[in-house]
Amino acid sequence: MKEVTKYIIKNSLKRIFLYRACLSRLKQMGVDKVFSYTLANEAGVTPAQVRKDFSEFGIKGNKKGGYEIDELLSKMEEIFHRSKDHNIVLIGMGNLGQSLSRYSKFVQRNMNIVATFDVDPFKLKMRSEIPVYSMTRLKEIIDRFRVKVAIIAVPEISAQEVADELIRHGIKGIVNFAPVLLKVPSEVVVNNVNLCDELESVIYYVQKILKSEGLKNIELLYKDMKY
Amino acid sequence: MKEVTKYIIKNSLKRIFLYRACLSRLKQMGVDKVFSYTLANEAGVTPAQVRKDFSEFGIKGNKKGGYEIDELLSKMEEIFHRSKDHNIVLIGMGNLGQSLSRYSKFVQRNMNIVATFDVDPFKLKMRSEIPVYSMTRLKEIIDRFRVKVAIIAVPEISAQEVADELIRHGIKGIVNFAPVLLKVPSEVVVNNVNLCDELESVIYYVQKILKSEGLKNIELLYKDMKY
Repeated sequence: MKEVTKYIIKNSLKRIFLYRACLSRLKQMGVDKVFSYTLANEAGVTPAQVRKDFSEFGIKGNKKGGYEIDELLSKMEEIFHRSKDHNIVLIGMGNLGQSLSRYSKFVQRNMNIVATFDVDPFKLKMRSEIPVYSMTRLKEIIDRFRVKVAIIAVPEISAQEVADELIRHGIKGIVNFAPVLLKVPSEVVVNNVNLCDELESVIYYVQKILKSEGLKNIELLYKDMKY
Repeated sequence: MKEVTKYIIKNSLKRIFLYRACLSRLKQMGVDKVFSYTLANEAGVTPAQVRKDFSEFGIKGNKKGGYEIDELLSKMEEIFHRSKDHNIVLIGMGNLGQSLSRYSKFVQRNMNIVATFDVDPFKLKMRSEIPVYSMTRLKEIIDRFRVKVAIIAVPEISAQEVADELIRHGIKGIVNFAPVLLKVPSEVVVNNVNLCDELESVIYYVQKILKSEGLKNIELLYKDMKY
């Protein structure tokens, strides 16, 4: 198996999602049109960055009076195949897996978890809206529903093995919640989502904020003492 | 409330977490030392990027024979205050909130959810290892446990209101799972984690992969036809 991946989730794509969220918020506020500098300000980037990202993803529509928000949003829908249904399998019906299998936002955005899998025989009997299958039926279900995308929510010790099996059965994209970096062939894309890292990065900045507030308080104290 | 945030989760910090994961994997494989180009290769970035990121976060330790992996990892522990306990509150005990409240990896990394909150009286009576409180007790609990970090897992409609309240009570950092961009004052940091976006970004690349494979197949077919 080759260890170099050709497809990585680019930061420009993440920014496009951020712009989309900003545009939705502006739309809710009753705004119809935006200039790139308004959107840039909302998203916390430069206007040049917005224009560069739009150009990378083929998003047009800048006119004299700015971009039409509806036009931008529907162009984004088109790029991200939002109108098409996408079948997904989920591996690992532990705590996090169960929660993801019930996450209603996925369905609202045409992303359907058609089946879930677990190695634990007890899990196969659990009550669940989406069927829970044994791993032995993985290939059959992937083939039947023409699944190309999988979510991994198994313990880190088995994540690589599960990924290898998914890829053998034709899966091309994986969202991996196991806190381990997966090695995949170059024609497969992996998005590693590490919930601890997300929390830890906030803690890192909070420490900085508290430190800077502490310093400010000391400065104020020092200023008081001079009088 | 000012709308410009001074603290955003930088990509360099995200790469540091990626390096950490790569280093852990290398260590498990029995490797003691790495050169920046080995680490860069593992992480899919350039060696110059690795050195630049290390320098930004004050990570030293490059010697003639490369970096000592253990030294790098303990330096990272130090930077991210891993040895210190961090108390966290979680707002919203729906499907996702319950799953996050039980996520054992947080505790393993010294991030303790000390209390959870919900507006639903039914949720207050549920069986849970971590206590579930009414929102009226938010300030009391935040004060008692000196909490500075919160996780928001409420519906998008109430996320901003909850964030405002948390910030009024002294919260400095928020991990937000509601699919909405929060507006916070400049001395607060927010990390918006959008699970739909994580899945959608994989789908975007899978479409590209399938298209490029389709083109390859057509090329092969065309090649065959010439004979």
